[in-house]
Amino acid sequence: MPAQQPSCVVLGGGGFIGTNLCRRLLASGHRVRAFGRHCHFPNDLRGVEWYQGDFADPDSVAAAIETFDIVFHLVHGAMPQAANLAMAADVQHNVIPSIALLELCSKLGVRRVIFSSSGGTIYGRPQQIPTPEFAPTEPICAYGISKLAVEKYLVLFEYLQSLDYRVLRIANPFGPYQIAWKGQGFVAAAVARALSGQPIEIWGDGSVVRDFVFIDDVIDAFEAAARDTSDQRIFNIGTGEGKRLDDVLAAITRILDVELNIKRLPGRSLDTPVSVVAIDRARELLKWSPKTPFETGLAQTIEWTRQNRPEIDKLFR
Amino acid sequence: MPAQQPSCVVLGGGGFIGTNLCRRLLASGHRVRAFGRHCHFPNDLRGVEWYQGDFADPDSVAAAIETFDIVFHLVHGAMPQAANLAMAADVQHNVIPSIALLELCSKLGVRRVIFSSSGGTIYGRPQQIPTPEFAPTEPICAYGISKLAVEKYLVLFEYLQSLDYRVLRIANPFGPYQIAWKGQGFVAAAVARALSGQPIEIWGDGSVVRDFVFIDDVIDAFEAAARDTSDQRIFNIGTGEGKRLDDVLAAITRILDVELNIKRLPGRSLDTPVSVVAIDRARELLKWSPKTPFETGLAQTIEWTRQNRPEIDKLFR
Repeated sequence: MPAQQPSCVVLGGGGFIGTNLCRRLLASGHRVRAFGRHCHFPNDLRGVEWYQGDFADPDSVAAAIETFDIVFHLVHGAMPQAANLAMAADVQHNVIPSIALLELCSKLGVRRVIFSSSGGTIYGRPQQIPTPEFAPTEPICAYGISKLAVEKYLVLFEYLQSLDYRVLRIANPFGPYQIAWKGQGFVAAAVARALSGQPIEIWGDGSVVRDFVFIDDVIDAFEAAARDTSDQRIFNIGTGEGKRLDDVLAAITRILDVELNIKRLPGRSLDTPVSVVAIDRARELLKWSPKTPFETGLAQTIEWTRQNRPEIDKLFR
Repeated sequence: MPAQQPSCVVLGGGGFIGTNLCRRLLASGHRVRAFGRHCHFPNDLRGVEWYQGDFADPDSVAAAIETFDIVFHLVHGAMPQAANLAMAADVQHNVIPSIALLELCSKLGVRRVIFSSSGGTIYGRPQQIPTPEFAPTEPICAYGISKLAVEKYLVLFEYLQSLDYRVLRIANPFGPYQIAWKGQGFVAAAVARALSGQPIEIWGDGSVVRDFVFIDDVIDAFEAAARDTSDQRIFNIGTGEGKRLDDVLAAITRILDVELNIKRLPGRSLDTPVSVVAIDRARELLKWSPKTPFETGLAQTIEWTRQNRPEIDKLFR
């Protein structure tokens, strides 16, 4: 008989990263519970215990965590743009319940908390590209500040309460289950619009560079972080290589073999021109590396979007 | 006729640093308004407009700031120890109203916000002593994390709204108007207890090192920060030199010429063993330097405490 796998609860389990993570954990033999407000693809979470609740309600969170071993904290109420428009609400909905979560985890004896932070916003406009974990953290958006604050409370809870944790600073993840309308990612939006023939909006001249990492590779990193025994706590997860938004559109054009309808808008001051994370630490200590070539991941994303058009369209209604 | 001085509103104007700052600004010819919940020494704030209100109430804050030019943000609801025991409340009472404050300042066209941050807690356990401003910020207490968060929002408001600001990371200030019972400082507590013959509690073996800076020098730094035209935003304010708690007690013994009643308690995990800030940046750009020898400041503190015993005792009742 194999040794029992630790049980896992995924907060934000109904979202993009959460759905992928739950499916993988289940396939790897863990008992998995997903907690969140919405579950958009319930059929794809068969075998996962779905626990509906609001992250801001500590009683629901406590009931969901119960005696589970590992807590994956993937909740973020607001998307980057929205957080800037309501910064106090962003703190209220993300930082404060995260503190409550850590108090709870330390009381309940959770073995490890794994927090999904933001490699794309936490460094701000970095001086060093690709950007290592020890670079200064100077976010230029509220989303990045609240992610940073939660990271700092994790440090504190380990210091005061010996709560074990790992942080993944994820660059720009893309892949199946990413829904464009949540403003969640350029690839999802571009693919959805390319498939429906709608204009693809692009801010600036397309020279903005991002580090797009395929979701399966991100999920590999979560599994590695759950097992990690190193002295490090924070790991960048990306590809270490930048891609221009224009290059993404060109790749979509190649795969679909259609002319895209591109609508260029003025650049947003919110945007860091170049964001690419250095992944040497994860390579060395997590024995992790991104395995999916960009076009392979993109083709899978396109295929998934095509097959799930009816489901996705329903979400917009 | 001299050029008109900018008008100043001091949030937290009834506290230790606030009272000293209001008195100085008034003496320097500014129109001064103090905002806060309590004013312990109203007679010493004659000539200052006192505006009673709660920092968490944005309407009161807006009414207090009105058309004033410079906003000094000295409010912090909880002391370091208390913040650790109620971290979510600390965020609620300090970070969230600070965001509201910055939104307000940018709407009202405030010319500069000057924020009093914490040189003693924001660096955590620094690798470099004395610690420069560019050192990693890894607080090991909740008080330091919320100070850091407010600093990050200041960066963001300058980026998004062109709100001008300066941050003073103040080491361990001491001097007149510091009240021991608020847990505000070792010097105030030791002086008050020495004068009343009560036992002086000291955590650990007395080898803990802090950078004690006299309040008059801190106030010089606030005036310099209000005038600063450099490209820097964050300045450490201390002496650049460390003093052991035992040395402080020895100095009190020398000045008072009495035997102190010292009660040694086990060390607190909260305490960084050594905290000393590097002040080269403030020296160079603010043309500021600490001028008061420790024993001179201590003698003034003792003298003030002696003269204000009846007032101070009233506060404890």
